[in-house]
Amino acid sequence: MIVQMKKDVTEKEVSNLQNYLKEKGFGIKDASSDDVVLFGILGDVKSLDIDQIKVFAGVENVTRISSPFKLASKHFKKEPTIVTLKNGVQIGGDEFVVMAGPCSVESEEQLRIIAKAVYDSGSRILRGGVFKPRTSPYAFQGLGIEGLKLMRKVADELGMAIVTELMGTEHLDEFVKYVDIIQIGARNMQNFDLLKAVGRTNTPVLLKRGLSNTIEEWLMSAEYILASGNENVILCERGIRTFEKYTRNTLDISAVLAVRELSHLPVIIDPSHAAGKWEMIEQLSLASMAVGADGLIVEVHHEPEKALSDGAQSLKPKKFDEMMAKLEKLSTVLDKKVKRWKYLLLD
Amino acid sequence: MIVQMKKDVTEKEVSNLQNYLKEKGFGIKDASSDDVVLFGILGDVKSLDIDQIKVFAGVENVTRISSPFKLASKHFKKEPTIVTLKNGVQIGGDEFVVMAGPCSVESEEQLRIIAKAVYDSGSRILRGGVFKPRTSPYAFQGLGIEGLKLMRKVADELGMAIVTELMGTEHLDEFVKYVDIIQIGARNMQNFDLLKAVGRTNTPVLLKRGLSNTIEEWLMSAEYILASGNENVILCERGIRTFEKYTRNTLDISAVLAVRELSHLPVIIDPSHAAGKWEMIEQLSLASMAVGADGLIVEVHHEPEKALSDGAQSLKPKKFDEMMAKLEKLSTVLDKKVKRWKYLLLD
Amino acid sequence: MIVQMKKDVTEKEVSNLQNYLKEKGFGIKDASSDDVVLFGILGDVKSLDIDQIKVFAGVENVTRISSPFKLASKHFKKEPTIVTLKNGVQIGGDEFVVMAGPCSVESEEQLRIIAKAVYDSGSRILRGGVFKPRTSPYAFQGLGIEGLKLMRKVADELGMAIVTELMGTEHLDEFVKYVDIIQIGARNMQNFDLLKAVGRTNTPVLLKRGLSNTIEEWLMSAEYILASGNENVILCERGIRTFEKYTRNTLDISAVLAVRELSHLPVIIDPSHAAGKWEMIEQLSLASMAVGADGLIVEVHHEPEKALSDGAQSLKPKKFDEMMAKLEKLSTVLDKKVKRWKYLLLD
Amino acid sequence: MIVQMKKDVTEKEVSNLQNYLKEKGFGIKDASSDDVVLFGILGDVKSLDIDQIKVFAGVENVTRISSPFKLASKHFKKEPTIVTLKNGVQIGGDEFVVMAGPCSVESEEQLRIIAKAVYDSGSRILRGGVFKPRTSPYAFQGLGIEGLKLMRKVADELGMAIVTELMGTEHLDEFVKYVDIIQIGARNMQNFDLLKAVGRTNTPVLLKRGLSNTIEEWLMSAEYILASGNENVILCERGIRTFEKYTRNTLDISAVLAVRELSHLPVIIDPSHAAGKWEMIEQLSLASMAVGADGLIVEVHHEPEKALSDGAQSLKPKKFDEMMAKLEKLSTVLDKKVKRWKYLLLD
Repeated sequence: MIVQMKKDVTEKEVSNLQNYLKEKGFGIKDASSDDVVLFGILGDVKSLDIDQIKVFAGVENVTRISSPFKLASKHFKKEPTIVTLKNGVQIGGDEFVVMAGPCSVESEEQLRIIAKAVYDSGSRILRGGVFKPRTSPYAFQGLGIEGLKLMRKVADELGMAIVTELMGTEHLDEFVKYVDIIQIGARNMQNFDLLKAVGRTNTPVLLKRGLSNTIEEWLMSAEYILASGNENVILCERGIRTFEKYTRNTLDISAVLAVRELSHLPVIIDPSHAAGKWEMIEQLSLASMAVGADGLIVEVHHEPEKALSDGAQSLKPKKFDEMMAKLEKLSTVLDKKVKRWKYLLLD
Repeated sequence: MIVQMKKDVTEKEVSNLQNYLKEKGFGIKDASSDDVVLFGILGDVKSLDIDQIKVFAGVENVTRISSPFKLASKHFKKEPTIVTLKNGVQIGGDEFVVMAGPCSVESEEQLRIIAKAVYDSGSRILRGGVFKPRTSPYAFQGLGIEGLKLMRKVADELGMAIVTELMGTEHLDEFVKYVDIIQIGARNMQNFDLLKAVGRTNTPVLLKRGLSNTIEEWLMSAEYILASGNENVILCERGIRTFEKYTRNTLDISAVLAVRELSHLPVIIDPSHAAGKWEMIEQLSLASMAVGADGLIVEVHHEPEKALSDGAQSLKPKKFDEMMAKLEKLSTVLDKKVKRWKYLLLD
Repeated sequence: MIVQMKKDVTEKEVSNLQNYLKEKGFGIKDASSDDVVLFGILGDVKSLDIDQIKVFAGVENVTRISSPFKLASKHFKKEPTIVTLKNGVQIGGDEFVVMAGPCSVESEEQLRIIAKAVYDSGSRILRGGVFKPRTSPYAFQGLGIEGLKLMRKVADELGMAIVTELMGTEHLDEFVKYVDIIQIGARNMQNFDLLKAVGRTNTPVLLKRGLSNTIEEWLMSAEYILASGNENVILCERGIRTFEKYTRNTLDISAVLAVRELSHLPVIIDPSHAAGKWEMIEQLSLASMAVGADGLIVEVHHEPEKALSDGAQSLKPKKFDEMMAKLEKLSTVLDKKVKRWKYLLLD
Repeated sequence: MIVQMKKDVTEKEVSNLQNYLKEKGFGIKDASSDDVVLFGILGDVKSLDIDQIKVFAGVENVTRISSPFKLASKHFKKEPTIVTLKNGVQIGGDEFVVMAGPCSVESEEQLRIIAKAVYDSGSRILRGGVFKPRTSPYAFQGLGIEGLKLMRKVADELGMAIVTELMGTEHLDEFVKYVDIIQIGARNMQNFDLLKAVGRTNTPVLLKRGLSNTIEEWLMSAEYILASGNENVILCERGIRTFEKYTRNTLDISAVLAVRELSHLPVIIDPSHAAGKWEMIEQLSLASMAVGADGLIVEVHHEPEKALSDGAQSLKPKKFDEMMAKLEKLSTVLDKKVKRWKYLLLD
């Protein structure tokens, strides 16, 4: 951390701050020039709050030179993290993994039809919401634990893993029992109680980026989970909020490259929520593979016009199957850094 | 709700959608011209998902013509809501109410010094964090329930009410027991489980606007609380996230006027979190009063350089006292719509 | 255009507005229900200002149901526009076109080295800035007309076309004389005098999207050029401004798909300005091809550490060559909608 | 400027960069610790491009510790700049200055009615557009030079100054001849050719902040004008673009305080374009005075429903007069830092 003092700083102001830091056990490295008083703070500054330094009289600016996250950082762990599910699927390894299923679980029949379809197209991870974060209290709120049990049952019939969103700590035990990947939704990315709670389990966590959160904040939320003991974190970019209204959100595809540079954690893309329009899903998915993501999470529904939520961004099974074929074809010319999609080849 | 069909829509596509709507009990009002097929949906469309209509083939656009919230709307309740606390203070009435105190409760001594100072300057509501939503897992997380009891004790000595943030449903019972106003933080504005839970109590709720949430979404979150039975909702604008980095956030002062137009709920401003710089607090507070807000929530600390969080945006008691005097003076020339600040006059 | 009146609207207010519209030659189509007075405006509403209707007492909301642009719209012209340059290169056709060169033209030698390199890698359009829009008045402002003549000379030696930015109308004649594609920079996207001026020429125009402009505004700026008589418009997405600071801007890759849906104009991507980091260019370029863009404009410099501008986002020739090879390989598995890159195959 | 090198930097990479800097005449001040190689660059780094340093291999980060603008900075000139117009009105002095008039000049009669009204309410500066930056090529583009002469004529009858927007360098001579304050619109804030051109005159310039420009970029654009020799620059905050759509833009009221901290230039607020709704103007204007702005620029029209542009955000003369009375009343309790409005008292 570098501290720059104001042009008119007094000696007393400088010593006030430096004494405070020394009392806390930090070292001081002077870097002043004729123009400006400047010094570095030496030691483990991870817990030092940048805003706290700015409080002192005479401080012009404080700059962090080390990243505020540690366990999530590539400096801490060089080799990429690979998350292995109970059914053997690995996220972050050689495969480009596609999670698929309905936005909401609506009934056993609906779920089985869709699960079977995405399985046949090569997906081995079933997505589906049972607790739904809806903007309106009057909208369908999900089937709850009942829906969770349905997911488990249908997935087990096919040998699929399941991923579904946990909205509060109340149902954590049931999620640990039934779920392969616990999803933390964009609106809960900084629900720190929830992050700590899932961090105390060993269940893999899919951490969605918040609507207006920076990549650094996203990795800090991952750090909460890692620091609580759970190393199985998968990041998911799902679009950020901007002034543009043609799409539901703006897919920040560069975020995949930023995560690769900063962290060892796998990162996938959710084109359905990013675009909000099913017509865009296929091409955004191809771009996601080309940019080097570890996979996708995609909404599929056999009767979108009857879906209880997000019908407008759901692919029909036939369209999903075509997309999977194009992804497979695309993967044939991409090198190792872009993970190959090999589900269909396995079948 | 108005539905506009595509230029090349077929008769079958139109009848598919209209039949679907009729089956759900809605009426259809045709408004087509030579160029375009257009119709209105008649009935209680509050629960109708705009995205769900867009799924149907042939739909070009769907426009909502009624607001998606009801209980929070001025159409539902014309007269302004006044929230009355146990100590008699009213938010939304004739007073311009200033809540003040430290960012974090750190110790009984710290809290008593600050509480006494803000009381002497005229505040009757003590703010202070005991569960802290910190970006970093390594930062101070708050004193927890112990801090809550300290707040109650110190506030009772002075006859003050207390406002503090609830981060999860786990501690709701203790909050109902000890707290006068439960704060829902910006990062939890769409933690719908939490909104429903506080909605089932009668304790007043201070609902902060999320970092990147629209005013409509903010009122929808208020609707969650109101729909669960709790009418005592106070809105709090605390700055939104934009590209500008000179301030911590961008204070959206127009939001006060938007809330006045759309809703009957009181709305206050948090200039401390909006600006992130104590030097800006006084003038943003004067502007908040001038624009017509119902009050403020402000961070005060007697030793900001020793504060465990947010020192850089905390006013010292002397500065806070000067600000209160300026607010009082300003209020003398503002008419009834801008609530007058009369604490000091009462003392 | 649909007009919705307020709940408490009077008959006089409705007739005031409707008479105003009738006097202007528009028709009225009533669509009122029991709850709300609602009507459509019939006729050529393209020139009707939506804000102008909102002025009338009693108006709640006005919704445009036709797009505000006409000549740029796919409704006006169904087949994709193909822009053909003098050297035969076509943008918007079957080729995925890569424009490349230095950020700034610095000297004849520098330009020739880079031009030859990108030519050898398959590019046939040389980019380079001679008038530079720099944030700081103290930064290098470009070689001006002298640089323009250098570009022409070097490009002619190789049979390349050139694209460079025009910042004001003063030099338009020289641009028409020397340049194959006139670039309108992001900061001038709504410099309407400049748009009209280039619209009066026949020289192809590369119209960059403004830093915070919507896709609709971008197409409206294209409409200015088209309405002035120049049909040769190429759109260029170069990243938008958001709260994220890891990248220089946020590449809005979905904008390519939006343009495809709304317009017949070709659209390319500038990954250099979007990311601001050369390390990201290759993978963003692959993603741009996969999503279906018509091409790229990329910064290349043989000595980026000596470049007078934008060195940090420039590829070295060797790296550029590797990227071109990967793009060629990728194009082999993409169907017709994604234009194939065939420069190297031709050579 | 502080340069931080990567953890795995080599000695050769460090010396490469340091030699490059030394060759350019800069000094080096080492500030390395055990963990990290870090050094300051000594000398006049104003012209040194931060991105240029980042190009060098081994660089992790570069931080500017001095502001990139000089002439616009409070470090350069401590006392506030006061801009004095030919009719004696001063912006940046003791008065809170209100510029008012129609969005567009439409006719001599229209202009005279409005000018007389705002004069009677105490304004001495007439605003009005004659060259209009319209999003649509089909919208009214302004009366041009004819309108300019009308403004001059009507203003002279009343002893008023005029402010109007210049969109290109073509008409600069006529603006210098007829206009008291040349407005640079938000969309042209980074039209650097235009900034240099008005910088070569002595006519006061009203520089609007761009829709998505940072405060630093805004001051850099002011620097362009100052560096060209014109010291009479007035800044104008007019709302920035965010995700919120209830208001046309989001008024960034804190920008006034930021400008006060960073610069000596006067700053006013345009509440009309910020809000886009006339109902909000009065209260945003009161807030603008309370926060400490030097004045306002407000749209007024006697028949907004017949205005050729921006009717929805124009105040009627009676409403404007009421607002001026409220501003006068408010100013009686604001101290010197908030400039007093004394037009009516003078009349």
